[in-house]
This record gives sequence, C-alpha cells and structure tokens, in this order.
Amino acid sequence: MTQKKMLMIVCDGLSDRPVKQFDMKTPLQVARKPAMDALTRHGISGTMDVIGPGIIPGSDTAHLALFGYDPFKAYTGRGPIEAAGAGLELLRGDVAFRCNFATANKSFVVTDRRAGRIKSGTSELAKAVSGMKINGVTAIFKEGSEHRGVLVLRGGGLDYRVTDVDPHQDGKVLESRALVPEAKKTADALNEFVKRSAEILAEHPVNRERTKSGLPPANMILPRGAGSIGELEPLPQRYGIRCAAVAGVTLVKGICRLIGMEVPSIPGATGGLDTDYSAKGEAAIKLLDSNDFVFVNVKAGDVASHDGDFRMKVTVVENIDVMLGLVLKEIHEDVVVALTCDHSTPVSVKEHSADPVPLAISGGGTRIDGVKEFDEISVSSGAIGRIRGMDLMPILLGTADRARKFGA
Amino acid sequence: MTQKKMLMIVCDGLSDRPVKQFDMKTPLQVARKPAMDALTRHGISGTMDVIGPGIIPGSDTAHLALFGYDPFKAYTGRGPIEAAGAGLELLRGDVAFRCNFATANKSFVVTDRRAGRIKSGTSELAKAVSGMKINGVTAIFKEGSEHRGVLVLRGGGLDYRVTDVDPHQDGKVLESRALVPEAKKTADALNEFVKRSAEILAEHPVNRERTKSGLPPANMILPRGAGSIGELEPLPQRYGIRCAAVAGVTLVKGICRLIGMEVPSIPGATGGLDTDYSAKGEAAIKLLDSNDFVFVNVKAGDVASHDGDFRMKVTVVENIDVMLGLVLKEIHEDVVVALTCDHSTPVSVKEHSADPVPLAISGGGTRIDGVKEFDEISVSSGAIGRIRGMDLMPILLGTADRARKFGA
Repeated sequence: MTQKKMLMIVCDGLSDRPVKQFDMKTPLQVARKPAMDALTRHGISGTMDVIGPGIIPGSDTAHLALFGYDPFKAYTGRGPIEAAGAGLELLRGDVAFRCNFATANKSFVVTDRRAGRIKSGTSELAKAVSGMKINGVTAIFKEGSEHRGVLVLRGGGLDYRVTDVDPHQDGKVLESRALVPEAKKTADALNEFVKRSAEILAEHPVNRERTKSGLPPANMILPRGAGSIGELEPLPQRYGIRCAAVAGVTLVKGICRLIGMEVPSIPGATGGLDTDYSAKGEAAIKLLDSNDFVFVNVKAGDVASHDGDFRMKVTVVENIDVMLGLVLKEIHEDVVVALTCDHSTPVSVKEHSADPVPLAISGGGTRIDGVKEFDEISVSSGAIGRIRGMDLMPILLGTADRARKFGA
Repeated sequence: MTQKKMLMIVCDGLSDRPVKQFDMKTPLQVARKPAMDALTRHGISGTMDVIGPGIIPGSDTAHLALFGYDPFKAYTGRGPIEAAGAGLELLRGDVAFRCNFATANKSFVVTDRRAGRIKSGTSELAKAVSGMKINGVTAIFKEGSEHRGVLVLRGGGLDYRVTDVDPHQDGKVLESRALVPEAKKTADALNEFVKRSAEILAEHPVNRERTKSGLPPANMILPRGAGSIGELEPLPQRYGIRCAAVAGVTLVKGICRLIGMEVPSIPGATGGLDTDYSAKGEAAIKLLDSNDFVFVNVKAGDVASHDGDFRMKVTVVENIDVMLGLVLKEIHEDVVVALTCDHSTPVSVKEHSADPVPLAISGGGTRIDGVKEFDEISVSSGAIGRIRGMDLMPILLGTADRARKFGA
C-alpha cells in the first residue's frame, strides 16, 4: 500500500453558536462555501472536542492536541512556544519565559508594563542583557515584536515550576518563588537576572535617548509563563513524516517549530483579516511536493469573532472557501485532507468557548457518509461521530496508511 | 460575557427498552410529552453512558458522574452517602457504614436481618450505642428509617478498605477483616463496636419490651458498605457556583449534601409515585433565583419500572412533562437546561440496566440540531453524539460560559 500525503487545514475559531438576528444560524451556516461543502460531500464528518468536553482550548493547547500530543502532559507553559516563535531553539532542561520590556522606578514599581509599546531599540537592549552567567546558568534573551521578548535559562538542575515576576498590572515587580523544592535554583537565577538586567538597562543608551525624548524607558524585564519542552517528541521522529506548516500568527508558528515542522515565511500571510489567502493556498500546494504532512492555519475567523462581527466572519468563511477550492483543484486526489477548527470562538461570546468544532476528512480513499454541508450541525450526523482533538492525527495517519499495527 | 444559570433535570430510571405489547415502543415513545419535545426541538440531543458502556449505574455512582466526579475515583462505598442522607456531617478520614438493626442469638447467629422491620424505638437504641470510645476511635451511630442506621468511625489512621460485618443473609455475624494492612485499626474498632453494642442492646428497655410483646429484638448492628469521602471536592468550590438540589429520595439527597449542595426540604416531594410534581417544579424555579446551578431528581419513573408497570411509567412521563412545562414557562431563556436520566430501568427488567440514556440540552444560546422528540432513539441522531455522564457537567458549564480555559 502506498503511503499517502496529508493536509490539515485549521480555520482558527471559525466554529460558532447560532445567532438570533441571523435566524438562529452560525456564520458557517450562512456563508456560501462550495469548496468546504464539496470536501464534506466527498468524505466523512463529525464533531471534535479539541481538548475535551467542556474545556475551553487555548490556541497553544489546541494545536498541541491537533498534532496528536496530550496537552495535559505536553503543555507546561507558554514560554517554550514563544521562544520557538522567536526563533530560539530550546534544549531539553531549558526553562523559557515570555517577557515584557516595562518601565519601572528605582523601587521596582512598574508604571508601564509595555514601556510605551516601545517600537525600536529592543534588539540592542536584548543584546545588552543576553548571555549573562548566573551561578552556572546562562540567560539567553531575545526581543520579539514591540515590547515583547523571550528569556531562556539554560544549565543543569532547572525546573519550570516557578511563579511569575510580572505583576500583570502596574505595581511592585514580584519575586519569583519556587513552587516545588527542585525549582529553587531556577527562581534564584530568574530573580538575579531581573535585578542585573535592570541595572544594565538603566544605563543603556537606548533608554537615555528615550528619557531625553520624553518616552518611558524600557528599564525592566518582566518574565512570566515559565515552561519546558519536556515530553515533546518531534513530529517527524514520532510518525516518520516530513512536515511543514503555513501559518501567519507567531504563537502557531512557535508550536510548529517546537515540534520540528518546517515553517517557511510566506509574504502576505499576516494572521490577520488582511491575510493573503491565495498565497497561503499556493504555499500549501507547493509544500505538499516535498512533505508528507502539511498544516495550514488561517487565523482570520478568530479575529472577526473577537470583534463580534458576524458579517465579517461570514466573509472570512467565504475567503477561506476560495483558498480551499484553489488547493483542492491542484492537489492529487490521494492526499488525505482534514478541514477543522482549533476551537470555537462564538461572535456572541467574543472569546474561545468549549463548544465542539466541526471536522471533515476526504481524499485518499476515505469513506463517504452522505453529509452535504460543513457546519457545526450538519457534520454532527456524520460517520466520524464525536472525537477528541488528540485522535485526529492518528486518524489521518490511519487513513493515509501510515499508522502502526498493534499486535500480530 | 454573562455567565448563565444551569438547571439539570434527572428523570430517575425513565430510560427504557422497547416492549412487544406496546408495538416495540418505550414509555417515552408512547407518552404525550409536549414540554420534553419542545426542549429537544430548541436544543441539542444525544445519548449518554452515565458511567461507561455496559456498566449498570447505581443511583449513587450515577449521580456522582452526573455532577462531574469520576465515580471510579470518588466512590469508595455507600456508607458516606447514607451518612450524609441521615444528616451526619462527615470529615475527611472518617469511615462510614450502612447498618441494619438485626435479631441474633447469643452465639451471634442472625435470625432476622431486619429485626422484624422494627418501626419504633430505634432512636433510643441508637443513642445508647453512639459515642462509644474504642482505642482512640469514636463510634457515632444514627438511626435511619425502619431497621436502617449509619455508623461513622472517627479518629486518626482509619481506612475504609475493610470487609462487611453483615452476612447479607441469616447466619453467623462476620468478623470484619482489613483488606490492606493500613485498615487493621478500622477492622478492629468495627468488630469491637459490634460486640460492645450487642451487649448494650441486649439489656436495653426497648428490646425487653419487644421480647415481652413477642417481637424480635433489635439486638445486633450489622455494618456494611464502608467508605470515606476522600477525593470529593465540593461542587461550589470546584466550579465556583452556588448549587441547590430538589430531591425526595434519601440516597440522592445524601449525595447532594455530600458535595456541598443546599438541599431544602420540599413538602410533598416524596421520591415515590405520589410525589408532588408541581411542588418540585416550583421549588426549582425559586431556587434558580439564588443559585447558579439547580438539580432536580424525580424518582417516580424508577419506581414504576421496579414494579414492571409500563402504563404507570407512561403516566409518570406525562406527569414529569407537565412539571417541565411549568418550569420552562417560568425560567429565563438564558438558563441552560439539561434533561436526562441517571440510568435506564426497563420495565421488562425491573432493575437498572446498562443501556445509555437520552439527553437534551437547550437554552442559553445552545446549538440547535433538528431533533424533534425526547426518547431513547430520536436523540441518538443529535449533535451531542454519545458522551459519558462525567462529561455532562463540563458541557453544561461550557454552554453557560463558566468553563475554564486551558492554555493561552
């Protein structure tokens, strides 16, 4: 049996609830979406609890589950994902933190958690504090967009179970505490990094210049969201597949890199409402040539939902549908294609919700169940039934004749 | 987003199997039930294995699962539930037993396990044996209805893993044995309680009077069903909700109290076929004012099934439907309502069975799946699919926008 290729298209937050003003329909039920419906008609459908029934998925935990990892085991915190998103390669044993550049006074009281959303100079500031040695631990720091950055502590005997330094609002900078005795060295190194980096940043030319221009200096680094990569066996080793991802949003890119996927940069793929859908579709088609598994995330639906904009969300559905039509036309019929969402983001809620998401799988000889439309309700009578996010990747591998036999 | 209120209505044992004499229909398929069907039409439906496929739920384990507890972890034995039902407040570390007052001879051979279903005097007998100190352990005893009672052992180092004293039929009173070494102290205290209480009961005026009147004396206490509350985090703390229950039957009241629900007494709510349905409905409506989650158990369907009375069960369905109609008319459309059963009790079996139960959820913006009738078969094509009892509470919390996000 030839092993088939796999394409997973995740429409971020596209799944929704019915809305009264739109005749108790969801955006997926209102939109014209011939490609999604064709995919559904030619395959099997169902619903999916991405993490589990009644659990609201975060974007990070959701994607881990979609890639077949148990998020309850694999997920320690947001730090490692941000680090991977920023292009820092993590080693086993490293502890990573999301950070903000902030403005604080000499008594370590934060007056602006984002240092006036600082736009330039963070690269120089990052270089000035990165590489610090603290009691056998090396602190690696890299800037992100605007006031954001990532800190990685590297050295023996570290543990991610420490509390945040970031007070999450204006106020006194917190001392990190170890949540377990094994994490004391990490908390100590972290507190020392915060103190020493504040001394360095206070005197840095970038900040002198900012103060002179009346801008709040980026004189404090506030780490939070400690985590380690622990149990994450990379996808290529785990399943013996070459993998690539098409994604605009940093968080999703970070997860994909973390689990060993190739994540090329695609001009125009922004992760926003203005994303270049056809650039994403074309990238996916191209990546399928040299990979066994290609993943595509389209963020725009989630963005429209956070704005509570039903009509915009309908437009997003239709834009994704055009992209999907383009892709389905170009790829071989033997490619196993999955269309789904990472979570629901109802326009009525404007936040992620725990409602299950629709799923359709077609291509590569998949069974055909007679469901005709891709929406939250139609798919629920499909042959897939109701599964968990963690089951999707094994089902795709099974359909692609790449699953492993258990027993004789 | 506003957090919504939740109402769970559990029709005890209403779920059934088809019966030949009634055209291969179930009581739910035969009954006229406009309110149940309306609820179903305005929401989503599915089937539910209350514990798991092929497992016959007890009323105790079923309700634990419906409230979101894993019965395999939370359930240690019936004793704690009976104790809570009898109004004894259990502490962590207590071991509780269900007990019978029985009649035995001087060689500890039981001749009547229910002491002639003794109707009066058990309160005096209970007082005479309660409060006993045994090697640092206090034995608290309280009478229940007729021959029933509850024993609680309190003190350090106790463990519920001991065998029953009750022989479960006429014959020699058993010595309790420790099933694990840690339970030796408990078994010893239990055996000592049985011996000493037998001495006290033998001489008690109530028993002298019974013997004089030719009635079997209640001269032996037979404990069974040892258990501890162990892992049960109360519902209000677990989910941050104020909870109240409307129930007539002692066992269900006991579980609700055990997990921290308010359980007001409702005149006329008997837990039998003669229960006052509208009193229950009105109590539920009232309790929704001051609570986030209200639970209603209606026992009558189970009672009709244990009698094997199909027609009576149809009447019970129609009575519950009237109650439901009253409730749905009064409550706000934003209340998330779940209608289900704790287990099937087929009239053809006259006992609980492992068949899954129907479930419908509506209100509060729930999706709508087009299922039109509330019965064992119609709901099985609904959008909920087939879930487990333990998933129901998280799904309700999710629909009510009270779920927690996992990840970022």
